[in-house]
Amino acid sequence: MSSEEAAELKHVLATLDDLSAEALGAKIKEYGITAPETKNPLSDPYPFNLMFQTSIGQSGLSPGYMRPETAQGIFVNFKDLYYYNGNKLPFAAAQIGQAFRNEISPRQGLPRVREFTLAEIEHFVDPEDKSHPKYKEGIVNNETLGYFIGRVYLFLTRLGIDKDRLRFRQHLTNEMAHYAADCWDAEIECSYGWIEYVGIADRSAYDLRAHSDKSGVPLVAHEKISEPKGVEKLVITPVKKELGLAFKGSQKNVVEALEAMKEKEALDMKAALESKGEVDFDVCTLGKTVTVTNKMVTIQKEKKKEHQRVVTLSVIEPSSGIGRIIYCLFEHCFYMRPGKAGDEQLNVFRFPAVVAPIKCTVFPLVQNKQYEDVAKYISKSSTIAGISNKIDITGTSIGKRYARTDELGVPLAITVDSTSSVTIRERDSKDQVRVDAEKAASVVREVTEGHKTWQDVWSTFPHHSSASTEE
Amino acid sequence: MSSEEAAELKHVLATLDDLSAEALGAKIKEYGITAPETKNPLSDPYPFNLMFQTSIGQSGLSPGYMRPETAQGIFVNFKDLYYYNGNKLPFAAAQIGQAFRNEISPRQGLPRVREFTLAEIEHFVDPEDKSHPKYKEGIVNNETLGYFIGRVYLFLTRLGIDKDRLRFRQHLTNEMAHYAADCWDAEIECSYGWIEYVGIADRSAYDLRAHSDKSGVPLVAHEKISEPKGVEKLVITPVKKELGLAFKGSQKNVVEALEAMKEKEALDMKAALESKGEVDFDVCTLGKTVTVTNKMVTIQKEKKKEHQRVVTLSVIEPSSGIGRIIYCLFEHCFYMRPGKAGDEQLNVFRFPAVVAPIKCTVFPLVQNKQYEDVAKYISKSSTIAGISNKIDITGTSIGKRYARTDELGVPLAITVDSTSSVTIRERDSKDQVRVDAEKAASVVREVTEGHKTWQDVWSTFPHHSSASTEE
Repeated sequence: MSSEEAAELKHVLATLDDLSAEALGAKIKEYGITAPETKNPLSDPYPFNLMFQTSIGQSGLSPGYMRPETAQGIFVNFKDLYYYNGNKLPFAAAQIGQAFRNEISPRQGLPRVREFTLAEIEHFVDPEDKSHPKYKEGIVNNETLGYFIGRVYLFLTRLGIDKDRLRFRQHLTNEMAHYAADCWDAEIECSYGWIEYVGIADRSAYDLRAHSDKSGVPLVAHEKISEPKGVEKLVITPVKKELGLAFKGSQKNVVEALEAMKEKEALDMKAALESKGEVDFDVCTLGKTVTVTNKMVTIQKEKKKEHQRVVTLSVIEPSSGIGRIIYCLFEHCFYMRPGKAGDEQLNVFRFPAVVAPIKCTVFPLVQNKQYEDVAKYISKSSTIAGISNKIDITGTSIGKRYARTDELGVPLAITVDSTSSVTIRERDSKDQVRVDAEKAASVVREVTEGHKTWQDVWSTFPHHSSASTEE
Repeated sequence: MSSEEAAELKHVLATLDDLSAEALGAKIKEYGITAPETKNPLSDPYPFNLMFQTSIGQSGLSPGYMRPETAQGIFVNFKDLYYYNGNKLPFAAAQIGQAFRNEISPRQGLPRVREFTLAEIEHFVDPEDKSHPKYKEGIVNNETLGYFIGRVYLFLTRLGIDKDRLRFRQHLTNEMAHYAADCWDAEIECSYGWIEYVGIADRSAYDLRAHSDKSGVPLVAHEKISEPKGVEKLVITPVKKELGLAFKGSQKNVVEALEAMKEKEALDMKAALESKGEVDFDVCTLGKTVTVTNKMVTIQKEKKKEHQRVVTLSVIEPSSGIGRIIYCLFEHCFYMRPGKAGDEQLNVFRFPAVVAPIKCTVFPLVQNKQYEDVAKYISKSSTIAGISNKIDITGTSIGKRYARTDELGVPLAITVDSTSSVTIRERDSKDQVRVDAEKAASVVREVTEGHKTWQDVWSTFPHHSSASTEE
């Protein structure tokens, strides 16, 4: 293949997500792509609904769909959330839960499954003010969006994702979801290639408007204007006495219909009333047209001071696939520690302490009732302090027990070799310090909750030589 | 209605869940029950599948069902969980997640919805040993089941459920689910009546056997026999040389089929070989019948010492509806505090500290930058310590702010009235103590994590008179 052909194909692959169904079908024909095993021609691509359809209730007449994202649960609660925040902007809601997508061919292990866990934040901002107090100068136009790109970077790297296998990519125009004005993906490289792990979308006002339109409930915020300015507004004032005389019991319907007129319709009525003195007016709640005279309503422009703006908010949404992040953590944290000559390599998961599922293991150095009692005491007080731990009182050699916990990715191992003090070993350096038995659980807690680092511990407590206990 | 009729109807209502569809239909006819508004006759009851059906993948040919319980996820992972526990019994796995039931008419608010959160424990025991180390003498036959009844009682009452509106009821025979050998429900009384909140089922070996049968994978435990006893076992020994001569390439199939024979089939073959010297034998992996001679296999009873038993475990399962418990907590914890003469009553949610969603509120007593800085510092260090808190720096009166947080059920309120010390107010007694600003977050933490009670705090710190600050 010539280098131009190769370049062309690379470009097509990179922009595949931007193609429509027809354009994709045309490319398939152009390149003569057929079924890999049978060589049969392929039918044309067609859209497929990724939502699982089901039936609600027993009549079989009410179709329902499993949610493909968890975001809507936040949007339908917008009014309550805004109220809960004291009607102040900006505010955000976060949620973790299951979403369901009927993937056509889920063949990428945990990163592509039909039921998965999403963690989404909906951050509501005034569209006229997308600034963010913690944003620093950068190339992304929307400060809040830029702020979240930075926070996602910090979050993923702190979890243990390799920064050299992490990048941010902006969506192509046709690739973006229907609700997004802009979208940046955090992509991580794993053995399945570069895959999206967190999508940061500017959903603008799409969702709130859609819910508002369908429900008839305004989903808006009221922002005080600091210096109330004079604004010219068209004011419609129905004259209730005249309308009552003319329409009797239907007066209320006509009043409401007049007040609901949009600006253009009201201006047309004003002009007609000025020239002809009366005009036909459709009142849909009465299902008929009535005659409105210039005695029945005044329509005029007035200068008013507006003290607050009514705003439909924009939404910035970072959305993370938790299963995907966990999968990548497994790949990025896996490490084979070279064994001594002749020994097999040892597997280690180098999970950062804050994310390791088991925070520490507790061992008596030898099988001895007093050491076991201390180990059980430390294990129990760790559990009470909320530190997940495993206790191992089997008689296996200490080196084997360390290898076992390294393979589980446990960051700290406590070994009881006396009744008053213990050693704490760090997984990656294999360095050990000595601490009082009473203090062990709280030292582990400080490291695993991120208040201290292992370096802090190493410089605080006496060092213990591991030469006699390991390998 | 006579008192006998009334008693009869009460009995029918109490045992409704025990009736079959036919018996229920007969009762409906017997009592002349018709549709409440139209008085039309009712059709016969018929079974309705409570699982939501959907279609997996794009062909439309693969039906799937939303899970109606979360338990199966634990059963299919049995082998890994048993291994993870070092092949020791007993062990349990716990899980929280969403389940889906296509309720026919969900009209009981949060206690009856089509998607809900379940928290289930599968506790695996040796069916020959359902004892439990923490069980005390009682009337329930199965110690593990009895232990969980006790634990559920402690759990629910500690959360704040009123013990006088909590009871345990054993299922009627026909009421039990198909997988249960025994089942006890924890029922709580709320405005919807007595409803099941936690079901504690003895699922015996139903699920493990079902998964084993369908998958062909044995889901068993191996228990050492402490005093290995002699057991007479039937031993089948294929003579590979003879079988190789007779069957050549198919020898392996015939050997495996012989070794897989159950006891009865083997004894029949033994008798046939002894009387006739040869017998027909179906080898299904070859799809044909072969002739086996008494040179090709020996079958005899041998005395062996059995060192371990192979056991299919029984399962005890406490299963809780989290939404239902939360609903009942709202009802049981709601309290209207009498107001002073002329004042409206004040609403309080008396959530126990360990379960309240917001653990504390922080207020500066007056709007003053120094007090606000202290309040922000305490709020931030509480957040870092994992204590959910709300800070209120509006200028509202302190009495109104206390009323607001009582209505949210917040157990503790910190008021900053100096730069070095603060008061902590307890919601229900309205008692206050004074503590150093530096200590406030940790005092709150100890109470909300259950390590100390308010009584402990009250007896440790100086009392503060609330007379000047409240009402």
